[in-house]
Amino acid sequence: MMLPLMLDLASLKVAYADGLTPLALVEEIIARRKASSDPAIFITPTPDDDLRAAAIALMQRASEPNSLPLWGVPFAAKDNIDVAGLPTTAGCPAYAYEPKEDATVIARLKAAGAIVIGKTNLDQFATGLNGTRSPYGASRSVFDPAYVSGGSSSGSAVAVASGLASFALGTDTAGSGRVPAAFNNLVGIKPTPGLVPNTGVVPACRSVDVVTVFAATVGDGLSIRKVMDGYDAADPFSRKAEPVALPASGLRIGVLDDAEREFHGNKDVEVLYDAAIERAKSLGATIVPFDYAPFRQAAELLYNGPWVAERLAAVKDFIATNAEDFDPTVRTIIEGARTYNAVDAFEGRYKLEALRQITLATWETVDVLMLPTSPTTYTVEEMLADPIARNGHFGRYTNFANLFGYAAIAVPAGFDGKGHLPAGITLFGPAFSDDALAPFADAMHRTLAAGMGKDKTAAIPGASRVQALDDGFVPIVVVGAHLTGMPLNHELTGPGGKLVKTCRTAPDYRLYVLPDTTPPKPGLIREPGFAGKGLEVEVWKVTPAAFGRFVQNIPAPLGIGKVTLDDGSQVSGFLCEGHAITGAREITELGGWRAYMKEKTANA
Amino acid sequence: MMLPLMLDLASLKVAYADGLTPLALVEEIIARRKASSDPAIFITPTPDDDLRAAAIALMQRASEPNSLPLWGVPFAAKDNIDVAGLPTTAGCPAYAYEPKEDATVIARLKAAGAIVIGKTNLDQFATGLNGTRSPYGASRSVFDPAYVSGGSSSGSAVAVASGLASFALGTDTAGSGRVPAAFNNLVGIKPTPGLVPNTGVVPACRSVDVVTVFAATVGDGLSIRKVMDGYDAADPFSRKAEPVALPASGLRIGVLDDAEREFHGNKDVEVLYDAAIERAKSLGATIVPFDYAPFRQAAELLYNGPWVAERLAAVKDFIATNAEDFDPTVRTIIEGARTYNAVDAFEGRYKLEALRQITLATWETVDVLMLPTSPTTYTVEEMLADPIARNGHFGRYTNFANLFGYAAIAVPAGFDGKGHLPAGITLFGPAFSDDALAPFADAMHRTLAAGMGKDKTAAIPGASRVQALDDGFVPIVVVGAHLTGMPLNHELTGPGGKLVKTCRTAPDYRLYVLPDTTPPKPGLIREPGFAGKGLEVEVWKVTPAAFGRFVQNIPAPLGIGKVTLDDGSQVSGFLCEGHAITGAREITELGGWRAYMKEKTANA
Repeated sequence: MMLPLMLDLASLKVAYADGLTPLALVEEIIARRKASSDPAIFITPTPDDDLRAAAIALMQRASEPNSLPLWGVPFAAKDNIDVAGLPTTAGCPAYAYEPKEDATVIARLKAAGAIVIGKTNLDQFATGLNGTRSPYGASRSVFDPAYVSGGSSSGSAVAVASGLASFALGTDTAGSGRVPAAFNNLVGIKPTPGLVPNTGVVPACRSVDVVTVFAATVGDGLSIRKVMDGYDAADPFSRKAEPVALPASGLRIGVLDDAEREFHGNKDVEVLYDAAIERAKSLGATIVPFDYAPFRQAAELLYNGPWVAERLAAVKDFIATNAEDFDPTVRTIIEGARTYNAVDAFEGRYKLEALRQITLATWETVDVLMLPTSPTTYTVEEMLADPIARNGHFGRYTNFANLFGYAAIAVPAGFDGKGHLPAGITLFGPAFSDDALAPFADAMHRTLAAGMGKDKTAAIPGASRVQALDDGFVPIVVVGAHLTGMPLNHELTGPGGKLVKTCRTAPDYRLYVLPDTTPPKPGLIREPGFAGKGLEVEVWKVTPAAFGRFVQNIPAPLGIGKVTLDDGSQVSGFLCEGHAITGAREITELGGWRAYMKEKTANA
Repeated sequence: MMLPLMLDLASLKVAYADGLTPLALVEEIIARRKASSDPAIFITPTPDDDLRAAAIALMQRASEPNSLPLWGVPFAAKDNIDVAGLPTTAGCPAYAYEPKEDATVIARLKAAGAIVIGKTNLDQFATGLNGTRSPYGASRSVFDPAYVSGGSSSGSAVAVASGLASFALGTDTAGSGRVPAAFNNLVGIKPTPGLVPNTGVVPACRSVDVVTVFAATVGDGLSIRKVMDGYDAADPFSRKAEPVALPASGLRIGVLDDAEREFHGNKDVEVLYDAAIERAKSLGATIVPFDYAPFRQAAELLYNGPWVAERLAAVKDFIATNAEDFDPTVRTIIEGARTYNAVDAFEGRYKLEALRQITLATWETVDVLMLPTSPTTYTVEEMLADPIARNGHFGRYTNFANLFGYAAIAVPAGFDGKGHLPAGITLFGPAFSDDALAPFADAMHRTLAAGMGKDKTAAIPGASRVQALDDGFVPIVVVGAHLTGMPLNHELTGPGGKLVKTCRTAPDYRLYVLPDTTPPKPGLIREPGFAGKGLEVEVWKVTPAAFGRFVQNIPAPLGIGKVTLDDGSQVSGFLCEGHAITGAREITELGGWRAYMKEKTANA
């Protein structure tokens, strides 16, 4: 059986349904690993026989193909995430330990049927955005080995983009789950901090670290993240939170204004960013240039501020005895934290909170931010020549996200004019808008024809499409005083209700003028078998709570039941108690309340 | 006109309605200030002529008595809160400055008609819970000048308790808005951090400081806090947040379990705490002993952890040049912060977040915590003999509140057996439950007969009673398959609905068995003029959103309109389209659906 280069979930699922076995899959992975041209992807590949054993164990546990959410799905984990049986190095051989337990996210993925194919290379202690800061070598862009892969989750991105795994876990403090996605034509799902547990993950900046997913499609990343989600009391920063909604259509997308555009001379990325803005417009989004300055100032705090002390906190005992074992750049950064005292730490927080207040004004004008993932890229040689400043360039549009607690999804933005190197854009939403952000991110990805990962011609499978989220609104049919322009319409518009459509009821309804109502109101009565022309109504939609309050405020003899519309659908809407039309004037022949009110005005 | 000793809002309002003028009021305040036996209440009293001018200006702005929310209400402000025209000292003469603008809270109170009578004494830089750490002298308990007043908001509490002001502002980091309330028979309203803006307040620990209200009653404190509420972008820690509800009745109250009871030998306070538990039971609360240990461990972080660096951050420039101008104890505490580095600061946060996770298990079993405000009290002499340890005793049950972001209300708990010294209890609720916490706090206060402030015999005015909050639930009358024990009852209980009562409809309803419904359902039809016996129904209540979803799921021919009950009230409930009862069996004579189902079962 031929597997495609990219092992996205939809393609793999089809292959399993067509007879692929987990054992055949892992043999293919073993073969691909051997054939890989990049020797720096893994720090510890899962041994071949262990992979075979995992495939056999899966078959014993759940023999039916695709019978678990991630049945037989091969994945890689960044080597700062514990996998029992494989050492955790965090990119530092002297730091290596043998974890007895899986990280919570690994345990959840294994329970769902996924198979770990190895631990991947990273910028040491997840300190970097470029992928060169590792004694295990620098993994490279899958499109040109002269170029950096991005980091710190370097090996994870390259593993997915080169078809060695269906997905891979990264971690993201500054942008490590997004920058490598941009450089390898992948999706990077960066959850809201606290949504996915960090138990069993080597901390970088513990208060802002997030486990991320590299995947071929947004749909894949979303479904994988959902397997990892959920409160974990063992993680001090795990949070219980309700999902936050975004408008289901007509998103207002914040984009860089002219003053804050910086691509470090990379015209290709700028062109691709502008093209992404045009693609967003084509999807019905409203483009809103905003002032990025306060976000940039927050971004600058992460490395040029006291948060770097969290990196020192994470390794303070180890660095006391093993400073020589550090990558020189990583050591310089981490030891720089010694200059910060506790006053600096709190003053950093004050600055961040002041900036957060400024950004709230932006969030009143936009639903989502869309920024370049990285403004540029560099060759490994260029990076090593100026490792701190050039690494900093990569974080220009990423570092603020976790400090502000946002959800983010990095999406491919296509290739430069020569089809040589890709770039990406990232969509940011408010905390816990992770699910709500996904449909638009997926739609953006599907407006491209840039393949998936290394395969520039692969079509994004339809089966991985992210359905537009139900925005939770409830439809309601209004007949009289709540119609657009009528005296009670504000009861719908006040709590944010929206007009869906104007249409007619099914034929078997009659309409009456209710006596003694203020403002004047009609009564809609169904009479099965009556063959009228239907009555003009409007369908609105409101939130369940607004709907509940609306119903609560309706006076007798009116109520809300189900009204059958001319398309046969049954929608909540105004009904009237039967006794109330005794002696009432019937106006069915006028076709609706609006016509009656016109007649009334004309006669007045 | 004789004014009572305690100038609570209700009594003052009556006096104004009866002819008291603002000018006469301020003359009375001037006279009381002169006659006061405690020379250490004020640092800067508002000059007599300025007070008179303020009264006249109020009359010019709003001449009608009680025409503004706080019309002519005299209040004092702790001297770390800016009042334009009066110096701010924070209890340190060398630190004094002349603010050009009012703090945001002062501006809002003045706009509402309140009159500032002076700036009150405090533990220097709000660092203390006892009131002796001030070069302006130690203000004393209004019940015995040998005893401390509590602090740091010492002068504010004494001013209110001795009838010099209707209310006073404090600030609360560790417990400074609660401990002095306990020692002076007052209510202390401690808002959720972020609810009331801190702009124009000298910081103590800026990330956890809160402006508080000392008042004679909970109702007073609540209405004053509402004047001060509201987002302020100039305060980095100001938050926009929706109010959080608590159950309107049957609160589950967490109380100290045996292992964590510590009163430092003070039997009187222990007896009063136990009595408060009994009083809570008498109000219908369920008492739940809980493990206070993780809360205590969080409390200990505030002074014995890196947060003390926030105090240093607040005065770092001043202490560099003026260390000798500090109170020696305050200086010792603040300079102790120099030993903490940025790693310590972040590690403190990690500890706090880990403790927060542990406390979540407690919050699943309780709605509110009730703790002694302070476990004991001391004379000024005793305090000065061991100023750090004994101050620490006062904070045992207070220090955790702002670190965890809770709302709290301190309420009097009565006097010791000799009627000599009072004690207090504090109720804690989740963030932004401030309003929801108030009705129970007020009810607890009213179960005492301990007067208000220094006046042990004053009756708490009925007019200041805090009405039980509408819990926002919506009532719904159910007739058939949704009754208790019936097949669709889970649609009410599932989303947290509660049974309110069983009763009957008004007489003019008929009940029918709807044909072809699964599960079997009745149709309730009103027929004006029909004189039946009414039909048995149940009234439930659910949240508006649950109600909205409930209505949304009701199939035709049923709907929700208004049902008239036997008490004449009209409540949302099940109705039926008239056409649906054609050929249906009428069961009105059975008196309700339950009787019909019984009959049906018996016949089966």
